[in-house]
Parts: sequence; C-alpha cells; structure tokens
Amino acid sequence: MNAALLKKWFQTLAPIGALSEGGVTRPAYSAEEDLMFRATADIARRIGLSVSEDCAGNMFISFPGREKEPCHLIGSHLDSVPGGGRFDGVAGVLAALLVMEKIRRNGEDLPVRAVAFRAEESSLYGLATAGSGVITGSVNIAHLKNARSLSGESLYDAMIRKGYTPGACRLEHALDFMELHIEQGRVLFEAKEPLGVVTAIAAPTRLKVTVLGRQDHSGATPMDLRKDALCAAADIILATEAAGRDEMRFATVATVGVANVVPNALNVVPGSVELRIDIRGIQRESIRRTVGKVQRAIEEIAASRGLSCATETISSMDPVTLAPSMIDSLAEAASGTGVPFRKMASGAGHDAMKVAPVVPTGMLFIPCDEGISHNSAENASLNDIALGAEVMLRSISLRSKHLSTADRSQPFSKL
Amino acid sequence: MNAALLKKWFQTLAPIGALSEGGVTRPAYSAEEDLMFRATADIARRIGLSVSEDCAGNMFISFPGREKEPCHLIGSHLDSVPGGGRFDGVAGVLAALLVMEKIRRNGEDLPVRAVAFRAEESSLYGLATAGSGVITGSVNIAHLKNARSLSGESLYDAMIRKGYTPGACRLEHALDFMELHIEQGRVLFEAKEPLGVVTAIAAPTRLKVTVLGRQDHSGATPMDLRKDALCAAADIILATEAAGRDEMRFATVATVGVANVVPNALNVVPGSVELRIDIRGIQRESIRRTVGKVQRAIEEIAASRGLSCATETISSMDPVTLAPSMIDSLAEAASGTGVPFRKMASGAGHDAMKVAPVVPTGMLFIPCDEGISHNSAENASLNDIALGAEVMLRSISLRSKHLSTADRSQPFSKL
Repeated sequence: MNAALLKKWFQTLAPIGALSEGGVTRPAYSAEEDLMFRATADIARRIGLSVSEDCAGNMFISFPGREKEPCHLIGSHLDSVPGGGRFDGVAGVLAALLVMEKIRRNGEDLPVRAVAFRAEESSLYGLATAGSGVITGSVNIAHLKNARSLSGESLYDAMIRKGYTPGACRLEHALDFMELHIEQGRVLFEAKEPLGVVTAIAAPTRLKVTVLGRQDHSGATPMDLRKDALCAAADIILATEAAGRDEMRFATVATVGVANVVPNALNVVPGSVELRIDIRGIQRESIRRTVGKVQRAIEEIAASRGLSCATETISSMDPVTLAPSMIDSLAEAASGTGVPFRKMASGAGHDAMKVAPVVPTGMLFIPCDEGISHNSAENASLNDIALGAEVMLRSISLRSKHLSTADRSQPFSKL
Repeated sequence: MNAALLKKWFQTLAPIGALSEGGVTRPAYSAEEDLMFRATADIARRIGLSVSEDCAGNMFISFPGREKEPCHLIGSHLDSVPGGGRFDGVAGVLAALLVMEKIRRNGEDLPVRAVAFRAEESSLYGLATAGSGVITGSVNIAHLKNARSLSGESLYDAMIRKGYTPGACRLEHALDFMELHIEQGRVLFEAKEPLGVVTAIAAPTRLKVTVLGRQDHSGATPMDLRKDALCAAADIILATEAAGRDEMRFATVATVGVANVVPNALNVVPGSVELRIDIRGIQRESIRRTVGKVQRAIEEIAASRGLSCATETISSMDPVTLAPSMIDSLAEAASGTGVPFRKMASGAGHDAMKVAPVVPTGMLFIPCDEGISHNSAENASLNDIALGAEVMLRSISLRSKHLSTADRSQPFSKL
C-alpha cells in the first residue's frame, strides 16, 4: 500500500470542518460534508478513477468503464459528530481508495468499487446511517421526514435542499461489501492488536426511565419521610450495571448514559430524575434477558421505595450478524499478513449493518488510541489503515480465486 | 388575635412580586423587597406603631416612645426565593405585628418590638441570613463582598447601592428574640399538629464530590474495561443515604441534591460526575460521624472502582442550640392553649440562628401543606399564624411575670 499517498490524502482532508480547539465538525448534508465529498472525488480523479453520485448523495468511485459492473464494494462515511475526530469514517473511505490505487498500479483485474456514504452520524437529525439505510431499504421516506434537527429541518428536507431524490434509487452492482473502521472501543488498543475481524454488529435497545419521587427540603425532611428520586435512580443505575455484568460472556453491555435531576439543587431532596439506558448486544436472547432484568429491577425499586417509575422503550433494534463467508475470507487474509488479530463484535453501529441484509458484508476494525472516538482526541495509525486495506485487497483476491476456480457460475445468486 | 386584620395584611402584601404562573419573587435588596418593607411599614403605622431602619436596611417596629427601650424582639424576613411562596418569612413578621396589635388594643404594658430582616434567602447572592447576620457579628464586610450575584454585584455593593452602611451598627435593645416560621418540612403536617417549639437549628456541612472516571463508547466498551463515573456516583448517593439513615435517631439528614453528568449522552459511558452533598443535624457528634462515613465510603468506592474522587468541603457550620429558657417558655405558653405541639429541631436555617449567639432566642414552627416551601405551591394556615402569635404573646407575658417577681434586677446581664 502507498503509505505516502495515504498520508497526503489524509492531510488534504484534515482542514475541512477543523475547529480551532481541535477536532472536526462535518455534519450530514452540511457544507463541510460537501467539501469532504468534493475533496475525496478530486483525490479519486487524480488517480484515474471515475466518480458518480446516487439519489441520496452517496458517492461511488469506480475504475473507468466498469461503473455498471458488479463489483466488490468497500467504503464508509465522511461526516462527523460535532467536535469529532479525523479517523471515524474517513479511515474506511481512504482504505478503499488505497485498495483501488494498488490494483490500478499493479495492473490487476479485480472488480472493486469504493463508496462514501452520506449522513452516518446521528448527531444532527437523530437518525444514524441514513445514507446507507435509504438505499438498502431499512430507512424510508417517513423515517427521513421524522428525523428533525433542532432547527426543525428533517433529513428528507436536507436531501431535497441538496438536490437529491431519496427513494428514487437502490444500492446496485455490489457483489459484497467491506467496511474498515476505527474500533471506537478499547479492546484492540489494550490487546495491542492492529486488526479485528468483525463478526456481528450490536444493536441498541434504549429505555427512558422517569423516576417520580417527591421534592422536599433537604434540611427539614427526616430520612424516613422521603421519596428521594435520585436514590431510586442510583439503585436503577447499579441494577443496570449488574445486568450488563451478568451477561458479559455474551458481549452484552448496559449503560446509563444520561441522568437529569430535578430540581438539581443542593438544598432540595430530588423530586424526579430522568435516566436514559442503552443496552447492546449481538445475541438476541442475551439482550432480551438484560432488558428484562433492568425492567424488573426498576419495578422492584419503585415498589420498595414507594415511588413511581415510568419506563419507555425509545428504540429496539436487532443485532446484525455479518456474512460467515466474509468473516472467513477477512480472517484468512489477516492470517496471511502474520499480524495478531481477533474476531470480535462491534458495539457501535456502522453503515455495514445497513448493507448486511442486502449483500454479504464484512468489517475490519483498527485500534484507536485509548478507545477514544467522537472526540477531538481521537487518534489512529495510518499504518493500521494501510494494513487493513492490504487485508481487504487480499480478501478480495482470495474470493476472486475461489470464484474463478470453484463456483463462478453462481457466485452470489441473489444478485 | 385579630384574624380579620391578619387576612387583610396578608392580602395587601400578596401582589408584591407576584408571578403570573403563581408564587412570588422578592429578592434581597430588590425593588420587590423594598415594596414589601414599605407596605409592612404602612401597616405598622396604620395601627399606631413607629418604624425605623438600621444600617443594613433591617426594619424595627416599636411602640411610639419606646424605640430605645430594651424589648422582647419578634420577627422574621420579607424576601423570597425566585418563585417562592407567600408564607416563608412573611408569616413571622405578620405574627409579630399581630402580637403588638393585641398588646396595644388591650392596653397592656409589655415591651415588645417587631423586626423584619433583610436578605434572608441565599438565592441571589449565595449568602443566607445576611441582614440578621451582619448586625449580630457573624457576617462581616468581607463575607458581604464575596457574596456575588450572577451579574457580579456583591451583597456589599447592593447594600451601598441602597444607601445602607453595613458594619456601622449592631442589634440593640433586644431582651430576647422569637421567630415564627413555616416548618418547610412535613413533620407537623403529617402529625397534624399546628405548632412546633424549635429546640435547635441544624447546620449544613456541604461537600462537592467530583468523580473522575473514563468517558468511553457505550456500545464498544466491554463492562470489565469501564470506569463508569455514574455507577461510582450511584454508589456514593446510596452510601450517603445509608449514612443519613444510620443517624436518624439524632435527626441528622444526608442528601445528594445535585448530580451533573458529563457528557450526559445516551451512547457514552459517563466520564465524570459532580455531586453535591448536604449533611445537616443538630448534634455535632452525629454530623461528624455522618460526614466521616460519607467520606470513607467515597474513598472505598474510588479504590474499588479504580477511579478518582475529589471531595471538597464547601461549607461547614455548627448547629445552633436555642435558649432553654425560651424553649421552656414557649412550650409552657403552647401547653396553655391546649393544642397539640411538639419540640423539634429545624432542618432549615433561619434568622433565629444568627440572633441566638447574641440574645436568648426561641422559635415556633407552624405546619405548611405537604411540607412544601420555596415553591409557588407553598401554603399555610392564617389560623396557625394567629395561634403562633398568641403563644408568643403568652410566652412574653410569662417571662414578664417571672421577671417582675424573681430576677428583674439582673434580667439579661450581657445586654
């Protein structure tokens, strides 16, 4: 892989949406995301590739003349959370370009296409993976219209404003899909492994819990006359942690990320607390057990403390299992490089989970420092991106070989 | 007591600082507090009393010609928290006027003076009982200068702006002091008792705890790799509650009223949490034990979870014991009325705690509905105010009798 070229590309993109305090802000369908798409298109054209755009603004980068041929698709996204890092998404798009650059430089004949999806982050409109979702059928027009920014604009409005026609196209000519992404967790970082082959993508079940106690004077209310909402919330926070720990062997996690205390004053016994709980896993049964444990704990806590807790399921998605053929192929390719790697689940959501129901999908993780992402301190290694690109290229070669020797007649019958 | 007059007075004051959504806002040294003082002065003059003001704007209401005589002082404050109730403070000032009105109407010869203190609430400048504190020596000029509102104005600036000269005067000519106040707790309300004789005023020790965990992706971070600041905070909240419950027989209470979670996002393991803890009691040893238990628990929780907790003592005050002579006199007077009452501690702070170190001080509580105060829903009974006024008058009569028969020669030698 051409590490010098990767560095140059990375530096070209770095200033776009860059903040003086560090980090980048490149929201979905913003001027900054547009600049990212244009700069990436320029990079692609400079190495002799052709660029096209679909009905949602997703960008496809092809070998000239092969735009309509079934290809192995590789890519990720170019938007960022506010104050996010330079690697989240970008790493996967540049890795795809590295693969195509090497194929071109070596004069190989491998059908590969790169993709940069739009609007992967949910920061602005509250809906994630919109660009990949809308062309693979899991995100429909109603979803786009319901996903509104604080200004009131919907994702649908944003797409129309940009001149796109969501709903008018589907993902086409893809044999399969691979995405390289920073892990956004600390597993590879702590294990000092440069690669992870993703086996499944966890799906979140999200609960909103409103604990309704009784607001009282903190000095004038004896301990036995209280209905302290924050104490009940503390019980729920610890019960959620315990439920997650109980399911550790299934890689399920349970987190209370949000706690809003009312009135949040030093001299007042808290009257109510809103908690938001995020439960994720890759095993449906384990997720179901964890959600059940948390809900039962909330009921018991409310009963024993004599206050009320209202629990609302905000969202509940199914985990996505990636294609065994892709996992095997990526693992075989990774073994070939001799570097240590592991098979692992993704706790975070990615474009790959939207593509997986449509074509065989695989995913590679590279480590990020301290597991930090969605943060200006996000950092990863360009060498690991190049290594991941190498593994994806080898994986494609392996599959092409299998294809040419064994079952070329019926490669991916659904396509 | 003249209940009709009390109702009229109360209705006269009700519109001052009244909010359309209910409740009143009468901040310290504001135009609204001034209006309260002026309207109360008008009421006093209309029943033939004379009005004067001290160097901090506190108002004294005397029988004409007896302005410089040693008197039994009765009163409370006229300011309110933002969106507060109409009884907090006002009840005590009007009760004092009722006492004086009855003495005058009956043609009795009892040395009584009413007082309305300034700036009892801490809402605006973060310093409570400033008016009573500055004339009794516990609040000095430095304290006033350090107490700043959000606009940057200090309490000292506010007093000067109003034409006062804090530091230039002290409380004078007071034989003793009595304050009637709504309980601001639910003890009397739940016991259905119309009066409480206060024995001591609890003092708060306030801690700020900063729990520093590690911010991580909630989906991508396995349970055993986390340093979840909110889970540690939950442990601390429950340990604080347990410490308070352990000391219930000493009337000590422990509350976590404030929890600020960072970043407080659904998909992020909380990186840090700031807690604010309020521990109050009337027994020094019990307070000390409770603070110690909470601090030890915080250290143990930090150690067992492998994260750091920084604890800072924001304030630490001593509880104030009221004068046994005043407690006995008020209890004897209350017994005389035949209504049920109890001796009890005050969990909230009051002007009485500032006056207590200077002259013998007693305090009466009346119930407020559901214990609610500092809230537009605050409500109390005018009958209970009149009953309290009657008890204070009887208490003064009792002490005057004792004084005239027993130890008139050396009543309160320190004055």
